[in-house]
Amino acid sequence: MNEIKEKSVAVFLDELASKAATPGGGSAAAVMGAQSAALTSMVCNLTIGKPKYAEVESDMQALLAQSEALREKLTGMIKADVDVFDKLMACYGMPKQNEQEKTVRSAQIQTVLKEATLVPLECAKACAEAIKLSRTATDKGNLGVISDAGVAVMAGYAGLKSAALNVYINTGSLKDREFANAKLTELEEILNGADVSTEEIYQQVKSKL
Amino acid sequence: MNEIKEKSVAVFLDELASKAATPGGGSAAAVMGAQSAALTSMVCNLTIGKPKYAEVESDMQALLAQSEALREKLTGMIKADVDVFDKLMACYGMPKQNEQEKTVRSAQIQTVLKEATLVPLECAKACAEAIKLSRTATDKGNLGVISDAGVAVMAGYAGLKSAALNVYINTGSLKDREFANAKLTELEEILNGADVSTEEIYQQVKSKL
Repeated sequence: MNEIKEKSVAVFLDELASKAATPGGGSAAAVMGAQSAALTSMVCNLTIGKPKYAEVESDMQALLAQSEALREKLTGMIKADVDVFDKLMACYGMPKQNEQEKTVRSAQIQTVLKEATLVPLECAKACAEAIKLSRTATDKGNLGVISDAGVAVMAGYAGLKSAALNVYINTGSLKDREFANAKLTELEEILNGADVSTEEIYQQVKSKL
Repeated sequence: MNEIKEKSVAVFLDELASKAATPGGGSAAAVMGAQSAALTSMVCNLTIGKPKYAEVESDMQALLAQSEALREKLTGMIKADVDVFDKLMACYGMPKQNEQEKTVRSAQIQTVLKEATLVPLECAKACAEAIKLSRTATDKGNLGVISDAGVAVMAGYAGLKSAALNVYINTGSLKDREFANAKLTELEEILNGADVSTEEIYQQVKSKL
């Protein structure tokens, strides 16, 4: 099967809507994060080389390198979410007819659940980074396309809050509470201040329109 | 040229990031709105037919009809944003060497600016509707996929706030202030309460995980 990112936007939306379990919200979160990074790149690409913005040229070059790396990472996460979900479903399908099988199956589920926690946690981290990059685009980017920086911050925020939900679900089923709590603490640190930052950046964009 | 929705997700992201003016934030907003509607459909499709959810079967059927119609509308808006932008750019490229040309060009720009206000306003309206539908999915949908309703609300919210920015830009350049103010009033009505609704729905999803 083709990777989701190779499918058309229309087919991606069809598959998202369908009763197939994947792609689901985790992939949608990664797509939103990737849209955020892409829009920051767009602002950079429409600022770089303009005489009026010569003063921020090197800042925009540096920002573009970061946003493009982040976009690549987030685009990869569209598939990562599907892969780990499929892996988890495969574990749930393992035989459980006797005690030994039950023990093996349960241990395997717990191992994959940790992975299924880390995938959306990485996505949340990347989306928080996307929000941060959209602030620089807002501060220094071409005023003619500043609304795109505003869309970037909203897409990053939606991706972050969406990824967080998948961390909550998977940590909820983890028996290793030390691991679960450590990851939840990491998530809270990532989420901390994101609401305020997003609102600040959005209002700054609005004031520049 | 192919419509954006027929292009792969990866190519869409490449074009979003590029220095081409379209697709930009307006198309990204429509894609986020369409993702929201798609995820509400997914929750419906994974609730309908389950004996455990027989009681909400007809509600979910009705919700699915609404979310699928909304998804189609929002998917169409990906292209509508590009089309109206191209039309506006064509106006700016009209000759303006004498007074008559200047008058014709300016009138044409003002006409298309009204259209360029209505396109994101329609997108904002559709995204607000997507938020509303995600609440029903949250209230009544299969608990096993309720996080997808949470992603639906965040995607709808990001689409709404993003589309709003494009309404602000285009009304800003309109000379017909009566029209501009009427559309800004409509937008405020659409935005009114969206923050609170989104937070409520998100927290309800979180409490059900």
